[in-house]
Amino acid sequence: MNYQGVINRYRDLIHLPTDIDPVTLLEGNTPLIPVPALAEELGGGFELYIKFEGLNPTGSFKDRGMTAAMTMAKAKGAKAVICASTGNTAASAAAYARRAGLRAIVMIPEGKVAVGKLAGAIAYGAEVIQIPGSFDEALSLVVEISQKSTVELVNSLNPYRLEGQKTSSFEICDVLGQAPDWLCLPVGNAGNITSYWMGFKQYHQLKNTGLPHILGVQAAGSAPLVIGHAVDHPETIATAIRIGRPARGEEALAAAEESTGKIIAVTDDEILAAQKMLALNGIWVEPASAAGIAGLKAQIQTGSINVNQKRIVAICTGHGMKDPDIITSKMTKPTLLPADYDAIEAFILRKP
Amino acid sequence: MNYQGVINRYRDLIHLPTDIDPVTLLEGNTPLIPVPALAEELGGGFELYIKFEGLNPTGSFKDRGMTAAMTMAKAKGAKAVICASTGNTAASAAAYARRAGLRAIVMIPEGKVAVGKLAGAIAYGAEVIQIPGSFDEALSLVVEISQKSTVELVNSLNPYRLEGQKTSSFEICDVLGQAPDWLCLPVGNAGNITSYWMGFKQYHQLKNTGLPHILGVQAAGSAPLVIGHAVDHPETIATAIRIGRPARGEEALAAAEESTGKIIAVTDDEILAAQKMLALNGIWVEPASAAGIAGLKAQIQTGSINVNQKRIVAICTGHGMKDPDIITSKMTKPTLLPADYDAIEAFILRKP
Repeated sequence: MNYQGVINRYRDLIHLPTDIDPVTLLEGNTPLIPVPALAEELGGGFELYIKFEGLNPTGSFKDRGMTAAMTMAKAKGAKAVICASTGNTAASAAAYARRAGLRAIVMIPEGKVAVGKLAGAIAYGAEVIQIPGSFDEALSLVVEISQKSTVELVNSLNPYRLEGQKTSSFEICDVLGQAPDWLCLPVGNAGNITSYWMGFKQYHQLKNTGLPHILGVQAAGSAPLVIGHAVDHPETIATAIRIGRPARGEEALAAAEESTGKIIAVTDDEILAAQKMLALNGIWVEPASAAGIAGLKAQIQTGSINVNQKRIVAICTGHGMKDPDIITSKMTKPTLLPADYDAIEAFILRKP
Repeated sequence: MNYQGVINRYRDLIHLPTDIDPVTLLEGNTPLIPVPALAEELGGGFELYIKFEGLNPTGSFKDRGMTAAMTMAKAKGAKAVICASTGNTAASAAAYARRAGLRAIVMIPEGKVAVGKLAGAIAYGAEVIQIPGSFDEALSLVVEISQKSTVELVNSLNPYRLEGQKTSSFEICDVLGQAPDWLCLPVGNAGNITSYWMGFKQYHQLKNTGLPHILGVQAAGSAPLVIGHAVDHPETIATAIRIGRPARGEEALAAAEESTGKIIAVTDDEILAAQKMLALNGIWVEPASAAGIAGLKAQIQTGSINVNQKRIVAICTGHGMKDPDIITSKMTKPTLLPADYDAIEAFILRKP
């Protein structure tokens, strides 16, 4: 009952020194929400669940890996950590660095980070550097800095990040009793797909929980793993996966192949449609987080995967509150009415 | 292991028909985060925990009550629900209405709702009405509408809201093994303080878990329960508690009195300082949510409560992502640097 975060929960399965005291904000333990109505909208005949990773402490799945990375950074005596980020990693790194008593330096590509995310990094006290380049350039720089200094890298190149992130696979198996048939998730820097696959394989070895097929979904304007080469100027409204040179690209492709799954691309319009579909089922996620459902929908529509009688989990990596501008920039204005009963009754009866 | 939301978890303790199928997004089960460093900053000598209710599905504690209210609305055959809201209730009502297949009509006071919250209500598909008045006027109107029509009221005047919200008290007792010595929380419309007190009393009767003293905290510009009369034009940056005529004011005063606690007011500056203090400990909450810590700090500084060796829980009702503007409007701009190793190294060595 007394939940103590992902490291303590899965201590024996995470490659960390066992005597170490975790830096934790009690991340993980996120709900696996059954969405039968959404499954029906997609054609029906299968079970569908959303793993809502937006309910981690800083609003995204990054916290799972950050607890492990920050635990090790603190144990090694680091005084500062650094990362490149499209926003979610920045907020998570900053929050966990504070928790550990370390400085957090985050580098973000100028003008390409959702405002709710930047606000988070600042709120948590990060030292934020913007560079006039892409995420990929920022990542190269922070790697160089971590190699030449005592500043610890906490991007998902840090192997402890993957160790923490794989715990979501364990949680899914624990709730369902076994792995799902398909796991659908967005793919950006490809650390997450890599960790899920690691986690499912590890749990299967230990507990015979089975293995899912993995459906990795990129945004069409930022789909290096689909088109087969790096993208110099990735473009998509799904800022969290606007990455042209995925650090874990090889592992992602291997996960898709080993799992008899695939990595596909969907358009921004498909992503936004899936975001809306999720929100109208009560789950508001940031655009990138809707990529898994967008990809699933596309695959079902083209008959590319057989979902009949299958159990499918889609990972929603970040909360919709991370990127309110996507909504506010095109939202219907509230209806302004006088504070008067008749006017309001008329509005209600007229609608929808 | 298979978590199914607050109604199923505490079914026997919630006054709802037992054969009813809950409308749930798996709300509740939020972390109780120990914050020893923050306790030290406040003077030390006591245990301090944050109950982080911002990690509910729509980002605030409102989801706990909404699952119960929406479950009953659906069971009664309602086709639409209505509420007045400073933002959090709106998002929650909209999400749960969607989950139940009902219309959600939400009324908000014009220009007094944080943008991240309005975005949420819109994203979840609410029909949003703005009126040129206060929250209190909006509440009067929706009450009238619910009385004269079949539209179901889901404000905290709805008794099922309190039934759901009290489950947070149960969770706290389950984690700590007993009630804390003090419970600190913001007070706006006063439904939440009322439900916590209900919950602690009920659990104590059943399980002998003890009772906390309750420290309810209002914003100085919106403190009717402190000054002893309604406030016609409440003002505070803590939009979630900008309420001049609390619907549950009597119950709140009774909770403070029965628990040998108190209701106090803190300034907006104190609230913002507490918000910053929380964020720099890794927990970013919306301004209103910091009121509990702000009040605790003030009470400790004036020696008004004895915290020595005590165990204290502060309720943080909503996530910081609900109100990013509070941060962005006054945030230090990120430092713009060339994508160049030397420049970045110099920045890191110079700081802080």
